Amino acid sequence: MEHKILLKESDIPRQWYNLAADLPTPPLPPLGPDGKPISPDMLAPVFPMNIIEQEVSTERWIDIPEPVLDLLYRWRPAPLRRAVYLEKYLKTPARIYYKDESTSPPGSHKPNTAVAQAYYNKEFGIKRLTTETGAGQWGSALAFACALLGLECKVFMVRISFDQKPFRKFMMETWGANCVASPSTETNAGRNVLQETPDTPGSLGIAISEAVEQAVTDPSGQTRYSLGSVLNHVMLHQTIIGLEAKKQLAAAGEKLPDIIIGCAGGGSNFAGLAFPFTADKINGANIEIIPVEPAACPTMTRAPFAYDHGDTACMTPLLAMHTLGHAFVPPPIHAGGLRYHGMAPLVCQAIVEGLFTPRSYHQTKCYESALTWARTEGTICAPETSHAIAAAIDEAEKAREEGKEKVILFNYSGHGLMDLTGYNAFMTGKLSDYEMPEEEIRKFTKDLERMPKAEMRKSGRW
Amino acid sequence: MEHKILLKESDIPRQWYNLAADLPTPPLPPLGPDGKPISPDMLAPVFPMNIIEQEVSTERWIDIPEPVLDLLYRWRPAPLRRAVYLEKYLKTPARIYYKDESTSPPGSHKPNTAVAQAYYNKEFGIKRLTTETGAGQWGSALAFACALLGLECKVFMVRISFDQKPFRKFMMETWGANCVASPSTETNAGRNVLQETPDTPGSLGIAISEAVEQAVTDPSGQTRYSLGSVLNHVMLHQTIIGLEAKKQLAAAGEKLPDIIIGCAGGGSNFAGLAFPFTADKINGANIEIIPVEPAACPTMTRAPFAYDHGDTACMTPLLAMHTLGHAFVPPPIHAGGLRYHGMAPLVCQAIVEGLFTPRSYHQTKCYESALTWARTEGTICAPETSHAIAAAIDEAEKAREEGKEKVILFNYSGHGLMDLTGYNAFMTGKLSDYEMPEEEIRKFTKDLERMPKAEMRKSGRW
Repeated sequence: MEHKILLKESDIPRQWYNLAADLPTPPLPPLGPDGKPISPDMLAPVFPMNIIEQEVSTERWIDIPEPVLDLLYRWRPAPLRRAVYLEKYLKTPARIYYKDESTSPPGSHKPNTAVAQAYYNKEFGIKRLTTETGAGQWGSALAFACALLGLECKVFMVRISFDQKPFRKFMMETWGANCVASPSTETNAGRNVLQETPDTPGSLGIAISEAVEQAVTDPSGQTRYSLGSVLNHVMLHQTIIGLEAKKQLAAAGEKLPDIIIGCAGGGSNFAGLAFPFTADKINGANIEIIPVEPAACPTMTRAPFAYDHGDTACMTPLLAMHTLGHAFVPPPIHAGGLRYHGMAPLVCQAIVEGLFTPRSYHQTKCYESALTWARTEGTICAPETSHAIAAAIDEAEKAREEGKEKVILFNYSGHGLMDLTGYNAFMTGKLSDYEMPEEEIRKFTKDLERMPKAEMRKSGRW
Repeated sequence: MEHKILLKESDIPRQWYNLAADLPTPPLPPLGPDGKPISPDMLAPVFPMNIIEQEVSTERWIDIPEPVLDLLYRWRPAPLRRAVYLEKYLKTPARIYYKDESTSPPGSHKPNTAVAQAYYNKEFGIKRLTTETGAGQWGSALAFACALLGLECKVFMVRISFDQKPFRKFMMETWGANCVASPSTETNAGRNVLQETPDTPGSLGIAISEAVEQAVTDPSGQTRYSLGSVLNHVMLHQTIIGLEAKKQLAAAGEKLPDIIIGCAGGGSNFAGLAFPFTADKINGANIEIIPVEPAACPTMTRAPFAYDHGDTACMTPLLAMHTLGHAFVPPPIHAGGLRYHGMAPLVCQAIVEGLFTPRSYHQTKCYESALTWARTEGTICAPETSHAIAAAIDEAEKAREEGKEKVILFNYSGHGLMDLTGYNAFMTGKLSDYEMPEEEIRKFTKDLERMPKAEMRKSGRW
């Protein structure tokens, strides 16, 4: 048996899959400041029109342009691997497969959408992209994509990560990007936050406000904003993960998996793997699909499904999603990529429908799983990815107890080579668990009552 | 055209290639304290006998044990890639291929020998390995191998790297190893150095002394020492790189390369790629083979070929090699893996024979090449690897000037994700070049005059 299931470049999927075409109930539209659905042209100062078209599309399949394929070929198709050593260690009858998204130059799944977004912006005549980054994975990915396409790149990096992870900044600079800590003094949004809370660790919500502000206020009109998760077109670009995995599972002689797992911060790596299989579930396949989040930032498992802004300064449209409130500042846990107050609307709608069964874990359990992984499978995973591994281990142990030969598939969303301070904190006993108290959630979600109601019909099939 | 030339696991080479079988003149033997060739059993306190047998073997092909293949499959076969974007940027008619050894979990070629050495030690009943590490690549690789095989691992890390690269230590600890700064207070060798020079940045020579001392003085007899470069068996294990590359070049429709390049500190990544092709050169093929070293530590290009110890405390046998003297403490340049005072004897013998044409580069030129690489090919290379890239760029430009369609093959020995402080130092103008002054070389090599003479007959064919 081959340990890695590889595809040739000529086997790469040539279309992305759009879950919006198959959701049993239509997604709720984004709303403008007036509480009415926004029109595509209202997004035009923020995104180029070719991306906006993808954002609102309900076509099931969307062609991947040849130049984007040429960019993806630099590291794709990504390997599907079987975790035979972990299986043996766990004495499980389950077969554990994982899609290895850590092989991209920036080290995660993020470049899948970064190169597509940079391409569409360049096609539209844009010269400069702004963005935010939490743990630094997304900022690195966009810096990488912009370097390949010759675009300028400006990254607002959440202060706590900026301080904890200087190497991520060096990485972005190696690819020619400009990276500053957020909140910064470069924008109104940043200056306002700094005035009120000079010592803030920052948040993705604040950094998004800064990046959007700098894009829409560029008088040349040649700057746009780029988002690394949450939005429909980002989920779309990530579906290449699951589409490749399907071909690879078939090549390994497997039918559909019984269980699919991904960690979820904004939702994109989870969606990328899960959405192509969600179509099978909608068509009757028996698959348990599990997005995993930290107990410290429990969006899917404990927050209301409501209309809310994607950023702190309320510059973005209202999105229907599970949200802890746009003013929420999550505690500084080590999985910086899982500290977002909201969640991708497409993921949330599928949760409300009952298609996904989210769960949350504490970070010490996740690091324990990461060490087990490093000492059996041999690789060092990102702190975000450790949430998926923790769930995969739980499911493999359950399969052992049940005596069932289940097929488990999870997304190995990134490596942890830039995140070793977290491992050190765990190994030296310095990490504590934090579970968001109920009153904190109530405090930050209270404002949501003043928003338009997110009322979704359910098909009731799951 | 596929950008990556991949082999199936079933296509992995099943034997290592031993250059000692084909060198036109027999290698000079290691000498003991009495100036006479040492016998294999004199090495027994340091290495297990199965490895000693490989060290002295002159068999051309040596079988790779199945369990070692099973360990190698975790990341091998490694991709051969073509640098099409760099070619385009340089407007060169040359075709530039590189063997990507950065895909191993520790991020370099080092695990190729680490898993083999850990396996042979375990087979021999050894429970614990000691070693030294410079930049941290080798220490991580041995920690990784020991984790997979359940051996204890103790790493003496050169002080300057220990301080500059705390993340490498966390990495080794994640794989369960114990890592201390060298010189340490745990050994006589370390204590002696600290007494004389408490502020020393350390050196590989000192760290080797410490690791060897701790192995040979373990009263249980269950500890051995493991070396990541220099010795014949290490070169042997690395030849899987070149053997895979040969199959992959053939799959890409290429004949033998015109030029082969690798950076060289102790020599193992260079040898791993070059030795299988050196056999072709010995048999008449026209290949230029270029090991590249830093001008700050010019072993191959400026040091005498002489008998010298591999370590500072003179605990190792005398090896015939190009050496800057065992007391040499190299300046703290950023390519920590290229700061060794000696060079693999097999590499040196081939240099004396005229089979290889070594050259040296300054570190700023290398970092410039690394940035060009990152912004064209898209990946961030190790500072060591940047030396090979600098030479590949020079050769590609020469091919352009000559109007020749040359095939250039180099070894991409590792990624630089753990070495971004060096990139930052370069980008902020803080790196200086250092060329070893002639009087420094004379000072450190003076003692070599008292050693037995390394007199080698040459075939005179190159």
